[in-house]
Amino acid sequence: MKISQLAELSGVPVATVKFYIREGMLPRGEATSATSADYGDEHLSRLRLIAALADVRGLPLARVREILALVDAPVGDPLEILGRAVGALPPYVDGDRADYPRARAAIAELGLTYDPGFTAVAQLEEALRALEGTGLDASPTVLRRYSEAMRRVAAEEVAPVASMQLDQAVTYAVLGTALYEPVLLALRRLAHHHLLVERAGAAASD
Amino acid sequence: MKISQLAELSGVPVATVKFYIREGMLPRGEATSATSADYGDEHLSRLRLIAALADVRGLPLARVREILALVDAPVGDPLEILGRAVGALPPYVDGDRADYPRARAAIAELGLTYDPGFTAVAQLEEALRALEGTGLDASPTVLRRYSEAMRRVAAEEVAPVASMQLDQAVTYAVLGTALYEPVLLALRRLAHHHLLVERAGAAASD
Repeated sequence: MKISQLAELSGVPVATVKFYIREGMLPRGEATSATSADYGDEHLSRLRLIAALADVRGLPLARVREILALVDAPVGDPLEILGRAVGALPPYVDGDRADYPRARAAIAELGLTYDPGFTAVAQLEEALRALEGTGLDASPTVLRRYSEAMRRVAAEEVAPVASMQLDQAVTYAVLGTALYEPVLLALRRLAHHHLLVERAGAAASD
Repeated sequence: MKISQLAELSGVPVATVKFYIREGMLPRGEATSATSADYGDEHLSRLRLIAALADVRGLPLARVREILALVDAPVGDPLEILGRAVGALPPYVDGDRADYPRARAAIAELGLTYDPGFTAVAQLEEALRALEGTGLDASPTVLRRYSEAMRRVAAEEVAPVASMQLDQAVTYAVLGTALYEPVLLALRRLAHHHLLVERAGAAASD
């Protein structure tokens, strides 16, 4: 297909498509003349992925690039790759500290693994610090509510990895972390909305 | 306390504290002389809240202001307030469309409430669109996994609202939406990490 079609199908403007090509994020099409090139489905899906990360997740370009690099050339063991993928996602926190006391206490309480080198530990520390002084409950009981839900979800998410090739598993882990999060949050917001609508209906029919 | 202490306790630099005061986001302290003022615990908790929204959630200042306005002067019914709170949070999407076909189909499948005026519907639409062409599964089975987890969480979150005054309920709903999300996501990432560590341990002892 032509670049104009690629732009139309992906919803990404032609100028932006050209920018991604210049930046090396999207491969060039196959030249068909001095001024035009042919693009295939692999270009379309790559472009959709870039748009998903940049537009839907709102990631800065440097972070999109990090994630593409992980998917293109998975280096290291799965834990290391997961760590890099998580580090490319917000919230961007200072991950260089030797200890994260709030996260350490919570993780011990919840029976998870405390590894100060894994960015989500620093992210949990900041998230817990943010709750302090807001009057919101961050007791073990409340944290367990979130943790139990996420452990069940994570166990189902991780299950298919056993039957995947390494590169497929990496793509799944990296993109799954980045792209299922907005789904999860939208569904939490919709569940609140649904409960309020139900309650209003019940009150009206009293 | 003095402004320097307020800055130290909150971790927000003095210049930024002064900026929030000028912007009307933080009340002035009580003047104790021509050049100094006294700040109380209510200043500290307000400042922590602003920092939580601006720094941990990374919200633009205009969005922080919207959320503070909702908490300060709750207007409308709970559904409307929830809608505004959700609209102040990312992902920022075009919420003016008449219909969101992907979200509509998913919501019908999941037994939630479809209201195109509620921003999370547009957010789900974008999140589902982002999954297309990435090879990640967005079938009803997978969506149900997330939806069931979020419905259980939401039911527990909504339960204490019944015993709250309106203004307290609004603060809880608005801040709970904004500030428990980073906790939830950090715990999902930590659950993945924990599962990988466990698996590596099991493989090593084989």
